[in-house]
Amino acid sequence: MLMEFTTATFAARQERLRAELRERRLPWLLVTSLTNIFYLTGFRGSAGVALFGAADGRLWVDPRYTLQAREQARGVEVLEERRGILRGCARWLHRRKVRKVAYDPAHLTCAEFDALSREAGTSLRWIAAGGLVEEMRAVKDPGEIQRIRAAGQVTASVFEGLLGEVRPGVRESDLAAEIEYCFRQQGAEGAAFETIVASGARAALPHARSSPKLLEKNELVIFDLGAIVQGYAADMTRTVFLGEPSRRVRTLFAGVLRAQQEALEACQVEAPAGSVDAAARGALARQGVDRWFTHSTGHGVGLEVHEGPRLGRGEKARLRSGCVVTVEPGVYLEGFGGIRIEDTVLVGPAGPEILTPATKVRWTIA
Amino acid sequence: MLMEFTTATFAARQERLRAELRERRLPWLLVTSLTNIFYLTGFRGSAGVALFGAADGRLWVDPRYTLQAREQARGVEVLEERRGILRGCARWLHRRKVRKVAYDPAHLTCAEFDALSREAGTSLRWIAAGGLVEEMRAVKDPGEIQRIRAAGQVTASVFEGLLGEVRPGVRESDLAAEIEYCFRQQGAEGAAFETIVASGARAALPHARSSPKLLEKNELVIFDLGAIVQGYAADMTRTVFLGEPSRRVRTLFAGVLRAQQEALEACQVEAPAGSVDAAARGALARQGVDRWFTHSTGHGVGLEVHEGPRLGRGEKARLRSGCVVTVEPGVYLEGFGGIRIEDTVLVGPAGPEILTPATKVRWTIA
Repeated sequence: MLMEFTTATFAARQERLRAELRERRLPWLLVTSLTNIFYLTGFRGSAGVALFGAADGRLWVDPRYTLQAREQARGVEVLEERRGILRGCARWLHRRKVRKVAYDPAHLTCAEFDALSREAGTSLRWIAAGGLVEEMRAVKDPGEIQRIRAAGQVTASVFEGLLGEVRPGVRESDLAAEIEYCFRQQGAEGAAFETIVASGARAALPHARSSPKLLEKNELVIFDLGAIVQGYAADMTRTVFLGEPSRRVRTLFAGVLRAQQEALEACQVEAPAGSVDAAARGALARQGVDRWFTHSTGHGVGLEVHEGPRLGRGEKARLRSGCVVTVEPGVYLEGFGGIRIEDTVLVGPAGPEILTPATKVRWTIA
Repeated sequence: MLMEFTTATFAARQERLRAELRERRLPWLLVTSLTNIFYLTGFRGSAGVALFGAADGRLWVDPRYTLQAREQARGVEVLEERRGILRGCARWLHRRKVRKVAYDPAHLTCAEFDALSREAGTSLRWIAAGGLVEEMRAVKDPGEIQRIRAAGQVTASVFEGLLGEVRPGVRESDLAAEIEYCFRQQGAEGAAFETIVASGARAALPHARSSPKLLEKNELVIFDLGAIVQGYAADMTRTVFLGEPSRRVRTLFAGVLRAQQEALEACQVEAPAGSVDAAARGALARQGVDRWFTHSTGHGVGLEVHEGPRLGRGEKARLRSGCVVTVEPGVYLEGFGGIRIEDTVLVGPAGPEILTPATKVRWTIA
């Protein structure tokens, strides 16, 4: 069983946010990202606006969500608003004569900002303050790690269960549908992103979608999949070969596997994020195939499939204990195919722990 | 087989847009909504920025999408940009000394707008012009109607196929997973939105999600589902009762069915959108249950599950031939359950045509 997120969980998160606001001398923060609202309060509707002050918090919802918000949201007063939740919040700020509110410009459209600032009036100063909550979310708490671990286990187990069905003549899109169906059967909420099954030359596109193409003999097949459990995602890629691989394919596969291994080992507390990328890139360079590695090595995973920290070239931010990241080197050869191996990894004091424990050794299917 | 969208399809859409721009004396329009870019050009990547002028169009993509954009996009020049596509577009505007560009404030975050306007320089004037493409999309062309009809047929057929499995002891979330799996098996791309199966008291929440709860005898169960075919969605709701319904349940069901029927009949070319809502609300009022109908009667459906026109109280916009809308009255009684019946409907010269032809009569499951 997963730990419940309790009132204390959300109180702790809100307190960390308030400490950050005090440090920046921001009396109020408007939170408009639904993911951030879920993180801070537990409310998981499709519309809501939250406002956090030095001592209290408020959540505006429309009548569809009043009951649900009262049930789910912790540490905030729930206010029902029938005539636009952003406007409701703005009117409240106006009535309370609030003078200064921070907001995240990445989570507000120009139209929303216009409506908000018109309604709140000219005596209110809006301060752009991006990424405060995202920064907190980059370090996971124990309940979050449990959920990502559960998502990783479902992901790994569904992949291994599917391996028996991977053979020439099967449709990419049928395998993708099967994977997403099995996620739910094994207790996940669903897929965290559109499952990729890409075979043959299509595997050379790093962002191929699953297509009606049939798998064929002597092809590489990339599987990129991730389940979602109670809002938390895992992200994993495996590549298999249908048939007896040539020496070239074996060498490439061993090279990517080696690069992934070295990058995994680089996922240590206090290591700069860029050093993980450098480890992967360095290993591929030793094999002379780094020019085919066309994306960065990884990214944080949690409530979103792509969040902080970014494991890209030269990134200086240091990994902290409790970061959960992907490590996913790959090579993509136009016309030939691609190989990518990816795990979701927890960074901790005992070293990196793989949260998507599916086989990487059984990769050829006779 | 579905009609192909040809170069002529996209040329016609772009020409309609240009006519609109000429009328408003807007020399350039920046298009940042990916849905609108797909509609106007056929490009279906997860990142892109388009710019339409009086005679030509441009599409900026990052290197992941260059190949795909060159293959898919019609009527625009594809430009690869490695250092941020919005910035690439802004630099182009700056170099070309463009003085005036319209944009849609609903499809640009404050952060994006800041980056864009900084890069484009101060001699460029930005004109907020929202909803131009959405307005066009509210009237569907024949290829679009074919796709929504195909999505509606899959939706209806999957629901009817599932009815045999609906019985006490089955999990809501298992039925939802089954529905989405069957969508794919029947050739849809997947579900247009998270499938809702909500039973018993949970059915009283208009936006309940599917949960691990087991269906029980003598419960109402709401199914809200929609397949997506080549990017186009359908949206349908059916409610069933497990067992022998009481007189109260029968009366409520008949009332909602009647309200839906009257609202469907109101979906006529040139009818004000609000008159459809009034028809549903009036029928429910005659039964004395309109206070439990807590949302509006419907919305347009197409590339998005919620788009124009809105069928809400007092909406004056008139329905046009080629509009595709949902008609979905419902009643929600806290602690007791809910009943909603919804179809996707094409408005045309011969009257409304239901595009989600699943049974409404077989609603009790012994």
